Amino acid sequence: MKKKYLLTPGPTPVPAEVLAKEGMPIIHHRTTEFSNIFLKVEENLKKVFFTNNNVLLLSSSGTGAMESAVINLMRKNSKAIVLETGVFGSRWGKILQGMGFSPIILKEEYGNAVSLEKLEESLKENPDVLAVFGTLTETSTGTVNNIKEIAKLVTKTDAVLVIDAVSGLVGEEFYQDKWGVDVVVSGSQKGFMLPPGVSFISMNEKAWKMVEKSDLPKFYFDLKKYKSKITEGQTPFTPPVSLIVALDESLNLILKDGLENLFHKYKKMGSIIRESVKGLGLELFSKNPSNVVTAVKSPDGIDSGKIVKLLREKYGVSIAGGQMDMKGKIFRIAHMGYMDKFDLIIGISAIEMGLKEIGYNIELGKGVKIVEENILSCNGCCSD
Amino acid sequence: MKKKYLLTPGPTPVPAEVLAKEGMPIIHHRTTEFSNIFLKVEENLKKVFFTNNNVLLLSSSGTGAMESAVINLMRKNSKAIVLETGVFGSRWGKILQGMGFSPIILKEEYGNAVSLEKLEESLKENPDVLAVFGTLTETSTGTVNNIKEIAKLVTKTDAVLVIDAVSGLVGEEFYQDKWGVDVVVSGSQKGFMLPPGVSFISMNEKAWKMVEKSDLPKFYFDLKKYKSKITEGQTPFTPPVSLIVALDESLNLILKDGLENLFHKYKKMGSIIRESVKGLGLELFSKNPSNVVTAVKSPDGIDSGKIVKLLREKYGVSIAGGQMDMKGKIFRIAHMGYMDKFDLIIGISAIEMGLKEIGYNIELGKGVKIVEENILSCNGCCSD
Repeated sequence: MKKKYLLTPGPTPVPAEVLAKEGMPIIHHRTTEFSNIFLKVEENLKKVFFTNNNVLLLSSSGTGAMESAVINLMRKNSKAIVLETGVFGSRWGKILQGMGFSPIILKEEYGNAVSLEKLEESLKENPDVLAVFGTLTETSTGTVNNIKEIAKLVTKTDAVLVIDAVSGLVGEEFYQDKWGVDVVVSGSQKGFMLPPGVSFISMNEKAWKMVEKSDLPKFYFDLKKYKSKITEGQTPFTPPVSLIVALDESLNLILKDGLENLFHKYKKMGSIIRESVKGLGLELFSKNPSNVVTAVKSPDGIDSGKIVKLLREKYGVSIAGGQMDMKGKIFRIAHMGYMDKFDLIIGISAIEMGLKEIGYNIELGKGVKIVEENILSCNGCCSD
Repeated sequence: MKKKYLLTPGPTPVPAEVLAKEGMPIIHHRTTEFSNIFLKVEENLKKVFFTNNNVLLLSSSGTGAMESAVINLMRKNSKAIVLETGVFGSRWGKILQGMGFSPIILKEEYGNAVSLEKLEESLKENPDVLAVFGTLTETSTGTVNNIKEIAKLVTKTDAVLVIDAVSGLVGEEFYQDKWGVDVVVSGSQKGFMLPPGVSFISMNEKAWKMVEKSDLPKFYFDLKKYKSKITEGQTPFTPPVSLIVALDESLNLILKDGLENLFHKYKKMGSIIRESVKGLGLELFSKNPSNVVTAVKSPDGIDSGKIVKLLREKYGVSIAGGQMDMKGKIFRIAHMGYMDKFDLIIGISAIEMGLKEIGYNIELGKGVKIVEENILSCNGCCSD
């Protein structure tokens, strides 16, 4: 009966209210009962995306929604720019390459955010670019990109801006319509506090016009099919019913708290954990850290995988290690979705004990103290 | 607190044991804990498919798995045969067309099974066909196709046989390896007694060799990616964790009963419901009826949609109407997955009352009596 603590950047813990809905008896999807839930879910998703666009729901992981953006927007032999600041930015490039394109990849050293100058320059050099693909929060490096400013640059051109907000939505400040982001994709297992298996895509008029001209082969991810069914509360293919019923509940919880309040909460949590980590003498990996996941450099000579393994096996605390080039070099703690102040306490406390055990010279309780001081002084602002 | 009865051919009722597992706290997918469940699930799926092939798991509906078969097997400008006996056969054609192909469509009048003669002839006329796409149980017409004989014809050629067994598996007799079916796709929400959201594909060596030569663009559904991860109990993209944990439980239930016993049970249930329907003076739609879903012609002058609506709204009993050309003309009762003898009683009883109320001259209890007599005489053979 070992108690477990999930502090990974997806999947994130699912609240008991949402799990209970997920485990309700299954209903048939071609019914008014389901359509009514679906329509309500879609209306509420619009509030989370801050958009008037339809938000389409796909039965896939977030990568499926990313692929749907590529194959519905792109045309044969057309140009795209990829803003790569980590593993998930690189995924845009791989999808485009998988579909036969040779995208222009503006790659930053991992840990850095997108360079606005480079993007501006590249857009000038390539006026025929059809789409710019980027990432809101690059989960692999704990970095947030400045989508508001990126959108200002892309809006001036004929290209559409496509943002992977799989891990960012609900956590980082993000306003699709106000900022002018043409296409946003997201998934269920991060800020939405759900198991993985349903993904989302929201497109504005500029993007839908591009869809009309797209000539890539498609069927399952043909977004026009999904759009044509949405006003009746339906999908072209069988939807993941139990996850959508659970999503209805998680959206209720999110909207009851209010998105602006949630943005404030995660911002505060992000700032507290960064201060605590630095107080322990550790270094942040990101030069522009996100508020929903914090990447920490492993102390010299310590394989971060060892810390992750120890915390999971001995303390039941799951944090994430580094991916690809960052393997062994960083560990990552999430503070997104159904996580609050005591998750910060648990995370920092487990890291203190883990590092001590591995032989790193650390003062037990020092990081926790910083978290406590901050919680007290912020007067409940990150308490719910 | 109206009690509801789901007798539709997908989704089917989910057993409480399985719902409970689905609602368990979420676990991280990149862990030994999840890999161990995944590996066990894959081993048990092999038993259900009667195959030694790997059974790959996708986060998608069954249609996604169908599309994955098409884009991983086909090559640009290559030929395919589609065996169309209903809506789901026609879907193969639509996917192929969506991907830019012009398949040879061997279409039967709906209600009929695949003609072996026509297939044999077409294979002779088109020795360069790459793949033959067909359906085990055509849910839209309540028909089962003779896959064993179809496979004998295709095995003799260089083409691969790809079977959509989304609604057939676990219910109809089906042995992938023994019959020589090269590729089988299925989904979670029928015989597997799960919510929709996870799909399956199993390919033999002949098919994998074809995958090597495939030149269609792909990424999310690139099956080589899935195969390369499966021995470590992982998927290339985030899997639908809660559904896979629930699948572990439903596979336990299925294998505890035993597949041969289940085949026998559904066979008996199919035969009983057909006898009962005919006893009520109604006509079957299919000339080669399946054992997992029964399609019944609506009596002259009665819109089958009316019966379906009345049963759902007044009695809480969900059966299915007709799709596409068959809309208004047939209704369909499922006897697959977590359904047993009393579901037959409920289905027939609701139909008796519904038809009576709509004005069709029917003797109440007559169909139910036939079901009861059969249950008694079959000595418990369809009781579990």
